[in-house]
Amino acid sequence: MISSAAFQPITPEILAQLTQITSNISTAKADLDLHAKDQSQHPAHSAEVIVWPTEAQQVADILRLANEQRIPVTPWGVGTSVEGNPIPIYGGILMSFERMNNIIKVHASDFQVTVQPGIGHKDLNAQLARYGLFFAPDPGANATIGGMLANNAAGIRTVKYGATKDNVLKMQVALADGRLIEVGSRSVKQSAGYDLLHLFVGSEGTLGVITEATLKLIPVPTLMSAAVAGFETIEAAVETVVAVRGSGLDPAALELIDAANAKFLNNAANLGLPEMPILFMEFHAAHEASLEAGLETVREICEDMGAVSFRATMDAAERKNLWHARHAAYEIMVRSHPGQHIYLNDVAVPISAYPELIAYIEQRRDERGVVAYMFGHAGDGNIHVFFPFANDAEYQDRQQFNAEIVMKAIELGGTATGEHGVGVGKAKFLPVEHGAAVAVMRSIKQTLDPNGILNPGKIFPQDDLPF
Amino acid sequence: MISSAAFQPITPEILAQLTQITSNISTAKADLDLHAKDQSQHPAHSAEVIVWPTEAQQVADILRLANEQRIPVTPWGVGTSVEGNPIPIYGGILMSFERMNNIIKVHASDFQVTVQPGIGHKDLNAQLARYGLFFAPDPGANATIGGMLANNAAGIRTVKYGATKDNVLKMQVALADGRLIEVGSRSVKQSAGYDLLHLFVGSEGTLGVITEATLKLIPVPTLMSAAVAGFETIEAAVETVVAVRGSGLDPAALELIDAANAKFLNNAANLGLPEMPILFMEFHAAHEASLEAGLETVREICEDMGAVSFRATMDAAERKNLWHARHAAYEIMVRSHPGQHIYLNDVAVPISAYPELIAYIEQRRDERGVVAYMFGHAGDGNIHVFFPFANDAEYQDRQQFNAEIVMKAIELGGTATGEHGVGVGKAKFLPVEHGAAVAVMRSIKQTLDPNGILNPGKIFPQDDLPF
Repeated sequence: MISSAAFQPITPEILAQLTQITSNISTAKADLDLHAKDQSQHPAHSAEVIVWPTEAQQVADILRLANEQRIPVTPWGVGTSVEGNPIPIYGGILMSFERMNNIIKVHASDFQVTVQPGIGHKDLNAQLARYGLFFAPDPGANATIGGMLANNAAGIRTVKYGATKDNVLKMQVALADGRLIEVGSRSVKQSAGYDLLHLFVGSEGTLGVITEATLKLIPVPTLMSAAVAGFETIEAAVETVVAVRGSGLDPAALELIDAANAKFLNNAANLGLPEMPILFMEFHAAHEASLEAGLETVREICEDMGAVSFRATMDAAERKNLWHARHAAYEIMVRSHPGQHIYLNDVAVPISAYPELIAYIEQRRDERGVVAYMFGHAGDGNIHVFFPFANDAEYQDRQQFNAEIVMKAIELGGTATGEHGVGVGKAKFLPVEHGAAVAVMRSIKQTLDPNGILNPGKIFPQDDLPF
Repeated sequence: MISSAAFQPITPEILAQLTQITSNISTAKADLDLHAKDQSQHPAHSAEVIVWPTEAQQVADILRLANEQRIPVTPWGVGTSVEGNPIPIYGGILMSFERMNNIIKVHASDFQVTVQPGIGHKDLNAQLARYGLFFAPDPGANATIGGMLANNAAGIRTVKYGATKDNVLKMQVALADGRLIEVGSRSVKQSAGYDLLHLFVGSEGTLGVITEATLKLIPVPTLMSAAVAGFETIEAAVETVVAVRGSGLDPAALELIDAANAKFLNNAANLGLPEMPILFMEFHAAHEASLEAGLETVREICEDMGAVSFRATMDAAERKNLWHARHAAYEIMVRSHPGQHIYLNDVAVPISAYPELIAYIEQRRDERGVVAYMFGHAGDGNIHVFFPFANDAEYQDRQQFNAEIVMKAIELGGTATGEHGVGVGKAKFLPVEHGAAVAVMRSIKQTLDPNGILNPGKIFPQDDLPF
């Protein structure tokens, strides 16, 4: 186990050396506090110094210095993660990418863009709009591209466009020893050597630090439709998800809200939702005829599966209206629990196991008698359970419930974390999910970061081996 | 550099130990000869013994023995590769997966199938037809799934459905030291730890041996259309590729044949093709209306770009007829060069650089005055140049031409190998393409295969470092 004794403290000499690399550096308590915790409920911890590099070579130079001096380095995007992924739990250097947030080049006819890691995906898409292109993964919050890559974030439209890992072609990465390498290729097709690109994607800054990325872009769809269907039972709703996926239709979003959530949203925001399990769907197409035909197929499937309400539209304003409840759900939930926190669960399973997973969560919720709201990226077999809690005892209890759900998901052939990464929150489940492969992950960590300076305390359980 | 001196020969004692693991073993010259070379022009080399394991534990046990005894092990699918990928150039054990060719389980409602690595993708698809599902990557030959995974094979429909790496979710892998691990997840969404799955995919058996794989499947499209367009200049054809890709249409195939190739095919097989650069396109849709609308858009684009001929159809028989030339091109080419060999080039670039790459190849072909036929997966920026040759001098010359094309592709931001892997043929280009990242690849190789027994002599150039 890494203890803080394995690392060296930041001395005035090291501060001076850091300042030679970049003048954008702070040890002010206000800055340290601002970077002590992400949006999760995991305990905050302060770094000893914050640095804001402005170019890749500075990142590499800082890592080289930190590696020589055995100082932990934790990369930081904008802190929207929810598993404690960028909490500097061993102190040391927190490296913020706030000042590396530029678009380097739009390769419009390749549907690609090269960016610095600190740009927010919403800010990126605002700038890409003029090209008729967009970066598809959308985790909700305005996460940075670097953070999304590091955690392999996903979101609502992953069912059609894939997760972040499916939408990156090339990266520049700074290694622990200060080397700068390029991985991947701007060629969409490549079979030249080991896929280092995907080794660094999702490694949460524990193998290297992403300093530049070339992303795949998608043409903004000409036409979109939306459909919302309500079902008497959650079983019927979830079986409809399986049926829609099995129909050969290609939904751009396929989201589930359970009855408890629909009722909650109505009470909190007077949304007029049917108070039953609801599916939200979106379809993209290049032609009106195909959009119409797709909606007709969806309506037939939903009715066959026993939908008691079905509304669909091809009108943009009406689509936003229909989807408003889904988009606003998280914000309404937070706003409606003043003085409480929200503990957020994230698991995913093969779609055929989704009904069993959802049934299990409902059953355990009722047995435990706790408040829990579900919404999920159902088309991907991904579910989030939101647990409001008001005190430490409730927090401990919800963590236990979360662990039960995670273990059930793994038992069903699924994963402990669909799109939030491992961070500190899911580390203990890694060996349950991956078994003997965790030793291989550790050996790669040891190879690329022998001193363990890169985002220590993340991904791997902390009570057995050095990483 | 590994020399054969680094490895131990197969002794009678080792043969006896291998026989205890599996009785499916041969040292007969006929068997050794059958496994001495793939379909490439790279020099043949015989293994010392062939083994045909029938289960994963046997694979692991053989590797453990080979690792302890310092004996090279080269995995073998069915030998359809074209860069010498499975040639046992240091002798030792050739491990054929011919007898591990079963479907383990069809997960029909997940659109997944779990298979042993020795099954041919065409055989797999024949068995999947009853489920209305198919495995999309199609490299042409009936390559095994294990070989396709090891080389990250791609093919005609990659423009819509991705390469092999995009169509695998989970694998079981035997490591050099005899450990069996599982990587990836049947959950389509996962962000739990390092992406070992994609580290092993495309590693050509040099990091581990794939013993089982769960693949993504696609619903067989309800409706397909085809279009064939001829252009006066290759520039116009290639710019049309960029325009079709930029239109937001989603072709399932977008293939280019150059004028030399069209003329050759007419002469050889009387196909009645327009003797000019030709684009072959295929579209898949769930509704006739969308298929019709798509074809209309394609026709408009082609005519805007100056197409002098355009034929399109939604009829299945007519589609096969239209596409016959493209599907039969390789076979016709081989058949029409009796006594000659075909040297096959494979590079890919970002689509915006495709016109410059194609122009360069044409220019150099004319300057060199050699016969060369192009056909390419144009929608992916991927081109194959076929060089017939009759003797060693011509072979050397075509290799040199190949090297020029590869260097140009890399200069244009592309790759030395789009879909054929590195093998022995592309190893020397790896440092040109990947620079300092090659050292990272080597360190991972060293970590997972410290004795270098796994498919030695592949991927890495052989004249500098131990791997």
